[in-house]
Amino acid sequence: MNYLGRQRKLAASLGQAKVAALLVTHMANVRYLCGFTGSSGALVVFAGDGPSKPVLFTDGRYTRQAADEVQGATVVVGKKSAPVEATRVLLRRRVPVVAVEANQLSYAAFQQLKQLLGGKTRLKPLSEVVEELRANKEPEEIEQIRASVLLAASLFPVALSAIRPGVSENLVAGEMELQARRAGAEKMSFDSIVAAGARSALPHGRASSQPIPDKGFIILDWGVILAGYCSDMTRTVHVGPVSAVHRKMYKAVREAQLASLEVVRPGATGAEVDRAGRQALEKAGFGAFFTHSTGHGVGLEVHESPRLAQGQTHRLTPGMVVTIEPGIYIPDEGGVRIEDMVLVTESGCEVLTPTTKDLITL
Amino acid sequence: MNYLGRQRKLAASLGQAKVAALLVTHMANVRYLCGFTGSSGALVVFAGDGPSKPVLFTDGRYTRQAADEVQGATVVVGKKSAPVEATRVLLRRRVPVVAVEANQLSYAAFQQLKQLLGGKTRLKPLSEVVEELRANKEPEEIEQIRASVLLAASLFPVALSAIRPGVSENLVAGEMELQARRAGAEKMSFDSIVAAGARSALPHGRASSQPIPDKGFIILDWGVILAGYCSDMTRTVHVGPVSAVHRKMYKAVREAQLASLEVVRPGATGAEVDRAGRQALEKAGFGAFFTHSTGHGVGLEVHESPRLAQGQTHRLTPGMVVTIEPGIYIPDEGGVRIEDMVLVTESGCEVLTPTTKDLITL
Repeated sequence: MNYLGRQRKLAASLGQAKVAALLVTHMANVRYLCGFTGSSGALVVFAGDGPSKPVLFTDGRYTRQAADEVQGATVVVGKKSAPVEATRVLLRRRVPVVAVEANQLSYAAFQQLKQLLGGKTRLKPLSEVVEELRANKEPEEIEQIRASVLLAASLFPVALSAIRPGVSENLVAGEMELQARRAGAEKMSFDSIVAAGARSALPHGRASSQPIPDKGFIILDWGVILAGYCSDMTRTVHVGPVSAVHRKMYKAVREAQLASLEVVRPGATGAEVDRAGRQALEKAGFGAFFTHSTGHGVGLEVHESPRLAQGQTHRLTPGMVVTIEPGIYIPDEGGVRIEDMVLVTESGCEVLTPTTKDLITL
Repeated sequence: MNYLGRQRKLAASLGQAKVAALLVTHMANVRYLCGFTGSSGALVVFAGDGPSKPVLFTDGRYTRQAADEVQGATVVVGKKSAPVEATRVLLRRRVPVVAVEANQLSYAAFQQLKQLLGGKTRLKPLSEVVEELRANKEPEEIEQIRASVLLAASLFPVALSAIRPGVSENLVAGEMELQARRAGAEKMSFDSIVAAGARSALPHGRASSQPIPDKGFIILDWGVILAGYCSDMTRTVHVGPVSAVHRKMYKAVREAQLASLEVVRPGATGAEVDRAGRQALEKAGFGAFFTHSTGHGVGLEVHESPRLAQGQTHRLTPGMVVTIEPGIYIPDEGGVRIEDMVLVTESGCEVLTPTTKDLITL
């Protein structure tokens, strides 16, 4: 990965924001900027094109790992928490203003930093600085994401084989997860959702000990992390005879998903992509049951910028990777969601998820 | 679980802290107080013994789940983020001062709340209010934790069967995780650590695609979540012939772990428990390689209060559940860690983890 290029881009944008440095405390951002994958650390990146290398602060648990992983930054292993250690360097270098990640740093940590810096270095809360860089994926990242999407898709047949009335949702998820490990995934990118029967009406129905019933929808929503990059996909299958209502529900969500996909191109806003699917569901009479937004970016985190939702006016640009995932949830009846990952291209979009959207009945 | 009792205890402590309400945004605390297990929400708890029920704010994804789960609180499903929705109720009820969880709320969220409240309701940052209640487990919680510990322990034989030179660390973790699902666990309580050979010198060596080598230590550190409650345990096993150095390393860690266990009783401080094991390792000549702290509380979160580490002066009290987990990590040579969960009792402690600490060679 092009860590030095990312550090340079960030340093330039900090200059424009009129801060001398950024204290990066969100670990996905730390990883993006220098390759460090530990769970605890902080990175200081200095503004401008001067000779100041970024500095990564971490603790004794990560001495070896930081030495192995970190690129383009000096590593300091400290005794205190990484942000506290960072204040020493900021003071020593007489940094006048340091930006912090306002969405990621706790109020208590902000106050602690402020006290330690004692007015000599001022704090400036900024939002989404590194996240904006991350939203547009580099070619090497897109290749990693493709591989992660394909690995996730390869688990769908495992789920289909495991699903039988009486088997627990947990076991279906467990079989998918073991296969993910076998295929080389680091882990799942979030708690797998296996929500069967009436539970399919829960948009976030994490796999439970409930047995698969003998009829109804099963929502499967899962993803893996492969070499750091996440995937995220949903398919809804059906056990037992499909009622007319269920057939209508499935068709409506599938058409809504295609309607949103149609709109994904450079220049479209998140709100426009959301509206296309929402209108399709309204027309089919299911508008009231689409109770969440349409999608989100995916990369080092499974939920990242941009958001595809009502009110989102930011425009898509080539290189963004987002989910398109409308769904409807009717209490006691069940739910349907279909989710693909798509890459925004120069001319439109490419659907990365290769899996059929035909209704599979088991 | 005794949600109403917890709400009453918290309401009383808020009165003492001279705030009219607490805005609970940390989801483990929300769950502790009202049973809601969704991933997004906020709970307002009012001070004193008045008639004001707590109010849980969440969004449309969780309408049904909140109705099913929440106890002792009114549920409000809103369109905006839960903390933002909460400000409306605070203003409507003319709450003069609301406490927020300073360690859990981001700086940006704090500023947003401040702006929405416009000076009519003042914000007071507090720390560890609910966490302090949670540190002392109720009998029903202790039973859940016991079950979670036993389920985790039952995965150790699965690991031993899976470990063979050439098999990937990932696959060992995967087999343990599938068995956890089969046995009814919701999920693992953290990313399983399977760190073999030279990787055992990484204290946080998450399972990787590296094959198990034909000799050396393997650190296994895992836990499950069962009915919301976490477990956490570590055993270190050995493949191939055990060198004199490795035997000495293992013995030293085992003795250090027993030395710390000896000290666990009501009235002991986290620092004292830490010191006992640290001194044992120093005496054995391995002091410099014990690069982390001795333990932490376990409950709804796998890392919670209290901490057992240098400088921790809080005293243990009956009902606390903590880990005791010294370890040493020698670069290129390997590492050893042994971790039990223990319950602080009236007279000392009870080791909950039933697994042998004899060195197992495979």
